[in-house]
Amino acid sequence: MAIAKQLDIDELCVTTIRMLAVDCVQQARSGHPGAPLGLAPAAYVLWDRFLKHHPANPRWCDRDRFVLSAGHASALLYALLHLYGYDISLDDLRAFRQWGSPCAGHPEYDLARGIETTTGPLGQGFGNAVGFALAEAHLAAHFNRPGHAIVDHFTYCLCSDGDMMEGVASETASLAGHLGLGKLIALYDDNHISIEGRTELAFSEDVGGRFSAYGWHVQKADGHDRGAIAAAIEAARAATDRPSLVILATNIGYGSPVQDTAKAHGEPMSEADHLETKRFYGWPLDQPFFRPAEALAHMRRADQRGAAAEADWQRRFDAYQRWHPELAADFLRGMAHELPDGWDDDLPIFSPTEKPLATRVSAGAALNSFGARLSGYLIGGSADLAPSTKTLLDGQPGIRRHEYGGANLHFGVREHGMGTICNGLALHGGVRPYCSTFLVFSDYMRPSIRLAALMRAPVIYVFTHDSIGLGEDGPTHQPVEHLAALRAIPRLVVLRPADANEAAWAWHTALQHRAGPVALVLSRQNLPTLDRTRLAAAPNVARGAYVLAEAEGGAPKLLLLASGSEVILALQAREKLQADGVPTRVISMPSWELFEAQPRAYRDEVLPPRVSARIAIEAGVSLGWERYVGARGATITHDEFGASAPAAVAFEKFGFSVARLLSEAQRLLRQA
Amino acid sequence: MAIAKQLDIDELCVTTIRMLAVDCVQQARSGHPGAPLGLAPAAYVLWDRFLKHHPANPRWCDRDRFVLSAGHASALLYALLHLYGYDISLDDLRAFRQWGSPCAGHPEYDLARGIETTTGPLGQGFGNAVGFALAEAHLAAHFNRPGHAIVDHFTYCLCSDGDMMEGVASETASLAGHLGLGKLIALYDDNHISIEGRTELAFSEDVGGRFSAYGWHVQKADGHDRGAIAAAIEAARAATDRPSLVILATNIGYGSPVQDTAKAHGEPMSEADHLETKRFYGWPLDQPFFRPAEALAHMRRADQRGAAAEADWQRRFDAYQRWHPELAADFLRGMAHELPDGWDDDLPIFSPTEKPLATRVSAGAALNSFGARLSGYLIGGSADLAPSTKTLLDGQPGIRRHEYGGANLHFGVREHGMGTICNGLALHGGVRPYCSTFLVFSDYMRPSIRLAALMRAPVIYVFTHDSIGLGEDGPTHQPVEHLAALRAIPRLVVLRPADANEAAWAWHTALQHRAGPVALVLSRQNLPTLDRTRLAAAPNVARGAYVLAEAEGGAPKLLLLASGSEVILALQAREKLQADGVPTRVISMPSWELFEAQPRAYRDEVLPPRVSARIAIEAGVSLGWERYVGARGATITHDEFGASAPAAVAFEKFGFSVARLLSEAQRLLRQA
Repeated sequence: MAIAKQLDIDELCVTTIRMLAVDCVQQARSGHPGAPLGLAPAAYVLWDRFLKHHPANPRWCDRDRFVLSAGHASALLYALLHLYGYDISLDDLRAFRQWGSPCAGHPEYDLARGIETTTGPLGQGFGNAVGFALAEAHLAAHFNRPGHAIVDHFTYCLCSDGDMMEGVASETASLAGHLGLGKLIALYDDNHISIEGRTELAFSEDVGGRFSAYGWHVQKADGHDRGAIAAAIEAARAATDRPSLVILATNIGYGSPVQDTAKAHGEPMSEADHLETKRFYGWPLDQPFFRPAEALAHMRRADQRGAAAEADWQRRFDAYQRWHPELAADFLRGMAHELPDGWDDDLPIFSPTEKPLATRVSAGAALNSFGARLSGYLIGGSADLAPSTKTLLDGQPGIRRHEYGGANLHFGVREHGMGTICNGLALHGGVRPYCSTFLVFSDYMRPSIRLAALMRAPVIYVFTHDSIGLGEDGPTHQPVEHLAALRAIPRLVVLRPADANEAAWAWHTALQHRAGPVALVLSRQNLPTLDRTRLAAAPNVARGAYVLAEAEGGAPKLLLLASGSEVILALQAREKLQADGVPTRVISMPSWELFEAQPRAYRDEVLPPRVSARIAIEAGVSLGWERYVGARGATITHDEFGASAPAAVAFEKFGFSVARLLSEAQRLLRQA
Repeated sequence: MAIAKQLDIDELCVTTIRMLAVDCVQQARSGHPGAPLGLAPAAYVLWDRFLKHHPANPRWCDRDRFVLSAGHASALLYALLHLYGYDISLDDLRAFRQWGSPCAGHPEYDLARGIETTTGPLGQGFGNAVGFALAEAHLAAHFNRPGHAIVDHFTYCLCSDGDMMEGVASETASLAGHLGLGKLIALYDDNHISIEGRTELAFSEDVGGRFSAYGWHVQKADGHDRGAIAAAIEAARAATDRPSLVILATNIGYGSPVQDTAKAHGEPMSEADHLETKRFYGWPLDQPFFRPAEALAHMRRADQRGAAAEADWQRRFDAYQRWHPELAADFLRGMAHELPDGWDDDLPIFSPTEKPLATRVSAGAALNSFGARLSGYLIGGSADLAPSTKTLLDGQPGIRRHEYGGANLHFGVREHGMGTICNGLALHGGVRPYCSTFLVFSDYMRPSIRLAALMRAPVIYVFTHDSIGLGEDGPTHQPVEHLAALRAIPRLVVLRPADANEAAWAWHTALQHRAGPVALVLSRQNLPTLDRTRLAAAPNVARGAYVLAEAEGGAPKLLLLASGSEVILALQAREKLQADGVPTRVISMPSWELFEAQPRAYRDEVLPPRVSARIAIEAGVSLGWERYVGARGATITHDEFGASAPAAVAFEKFGFSVARLLSEAQRLLRQA
């Protein structure tokens, strides 16, 4: 090999990481070279001396979690994964940012290759890391027994100025400090450069002071000094009562002609600058993707250490399994996101003779029917609205500072933080997270919902107060566009049940759906419990839409489609229409996504193509309903904001009434 | 009057405020009594001794701005407005939270009645206040002249624990500290109670320490002690180089049987507790909405002080007008959100012979064409993406700490904070704000966009990198659902121009649209400039949709609808279809909302009802397009996430191609 400077093995490894990362960017002619150049020493020290992992088995459940919150530094992660022996080949690196490559522009959740979460949208990875650390703390408290520490790992997070500026990181840092998550260690790449220029343009706060105020252990270290970095990580690990922040003074684009400039951030270097960088590091100019054999051998030895660590853990787990077979089975089931036999044995059945119930209440009862059976696995909470969203697990303790074994999380008024923490909980495995707020505030956490959908993370959202039907709190709290906006997100299942039994089955469906997130959309106001002896059964919720009440006296002439609190209006209108001799079918349509996943034959059975007289009624915007009512159908919806008034008044004033349904029906039937 | 305890006039006024507020809640049987009881002394001290306002003229432009960020305490605000003589009657108070009442559940922007902004969703009011203070600082720097301080007011904000927990408040507090906004004073109602219980459940950070780290001036005061409150506000006003936080130790529900409990927060008291509260305060039990004459007279005297203050200001403004007539005219025009003659004289015209341009670039040129003419009025910036979003105003200085006269704002990586600050800027008047980020990150600021729409605040959003066409950055950065999700928001105009000239006219349209916010949605990738000598003119953008290329050889048999970067594909497909003898019309559809606002006749002219063969092509989800293509039409859209790959590859792989358009056309024409 032709390295001009003689480097010690650590320096050689760091340089190898740097050069592989910049070669990725250069080859793709796209990407972010600056952060890998600045962060490589810290990443190497962490991976070489501290990170507990087993590249041959990225799914080993007690591995340390590593989150690259600064997702734009993806080339750094791919270089590390390749050099440490994960399933990322040189050809994969060469295909950085190309169609089909595992080396995407920003890291995409791919556990088989050691990518723990999807990052890039700033602040999200940081919040995920809080979720990983919280999952670890919870599982350790729930499953570990004296002499059997089967859950015992750290969570490390590399983050950037951008992460530090995002509110979601503030929210989750505050909560992590509150909870005292001692095994969470964040390394902050304090390079003073953001896209518009030096961070002084917009960011002059004392980040360390802020984190101290959150209750974190805060250190500063020279990001070029491997010894200092190692000492800081050592001290951070020793501070077991609270999370740690290590502020690393680094230089973006270190060693390149664009060092310390915004140019280093988000674009490839010129060919000349690229070569000049190689020269600075004494690296061969004519061998892109060069990996010195000693460096590769040194880093690949991590696999032996990892194998030994996992084998040791497996021995300990085997012993645990002998001593605590039921706990061990629970643990393994949770890690696989599987449900135990009989988990739904107590699912409540609501009678139509009971007094009307809000679906938030019936859903809360359903949640509690399996809460105890899923103890340790099912955890969740609310952004300070649990008494309203009815999401407390009765009789189970809260999760508090240094008492993590409970089931009830208190997220505070931090919806976005809640969303991103739940992503981390779900991805960690072992726990199934749910979280709740009012539907209108789903907007606050939308970036996290999107990422859950993109990653297919099985988070359950409980969004209550789902329409103008919440009444007096007014338009700031009344969602109108949120159903449409959530339906727009690919891979997200939105479920809006119509009554107590649909609500119970909606929860049931959500827990069985592990291929992505589910949003349960629930009413604040009471709704009558439908008489299922006369109507179709509630488990049909799982099909997304179903014929709730069939037309009588002939084939349907009119289809009434509704979701949630408007279904009862459709049923009442049907009574009158049938009395007038109009065969009318009512379709309960709690979930478009589940319905779309049904076979064509089923969909055509529910919505017969030959019936064009269709009315959809839903207390929200019309957007998208044309798909189901067609060009000749009608929608009773509300394409404006709500108003502060009692719920019944708002419903009547905005036209959500049987009378309006009847007049629309007459109009359509006249046209037919 | 029958007040048992003899109270001094201040105490009497405070009690009057408290009792009116709880009577509102009690009458409505809905609302939040606790915060008004705890906060009334601070609110009274502020309004009585400091607030510069003129109840008879709530629009006086140099009034202090008062923001109740803790919007759930709305009854407190309505009580104040009523007692100080604003246009809120006793009957209005009695109709609290009822249909049509100005006293909505949460305060709704209503300047005629002294309500400066809509609050309730937590953290938003705090961010608005930063925007108000920034507007004041900017206008003062731009318009004031030695001896002529025509802009000189404070911004006060009352906020709660919930505000403090929200990330958006963290973002805006950090930026306010960075900018050293000395005339911003926040009073924090530190009552230790949130909805789920004591704040210790989830919130134990050192708020004062955090704000100190942001660079704020921080004080603590006893929220019951009017003297201490006054002294703290005095000191806060004296700290002119940085914003101030006054942490008020208060008791939620003070004086009621539910004091210091979560029960006091969000529900009316029982009748017994209500009476017990009245007893505690020595208030008549049988006279709801009781206002002692002395208290009313004392508070209503604010109007005389306000009249004198405004008259003094008017004299000073008249002098300013004589000395600086042009500046004065600019100032008044800006306060009225009007544009000067000739503002658009330099709007660029792009030639089809120039090389292809991204619409972000052409929009940036348009912005700069009127930037200089709107100096002082048009200000804006980006969440650290200006080099990518092309939103810098060339040759104009940045807005920096204690140098506020420039036009370019640097928001840092704080999208949500940017959105809420822009709401404050727009509501303050005198400035027209725009802000920019990538379209995918509109999710981060969605709660603020919603409030801008609800308030009809004329904020302009510049959202670039608008589809999978951004390429390699991958699905985390590729919006697919965002056009649909933005279109779902009532009152928001979404505009996605197809080429350079449409982009210029989109900016033109946005600046003329003062009835609410506008989102400009722009491409990262280059697009050919359409030849307007052969196609319809670009100013048609203002109509939302228009016939860009008419069918030839007969009435149209096929309609191709497209927006943005997909319009060129429709035009290219049309060429082939026309060559094959199919009369094909291409409709450029940059804005659904503007199109819906057109008369029916125009809409039917553009989309003739008799033509059912229609294809919409847009690089995003299909949601909603059925409205325009009908049951027999087709959509070429993408109901999944994107992928990391060069833009051209992503477009081809996901089916955004002329070939796909042609095959869909053939399918539809066969069916017809």
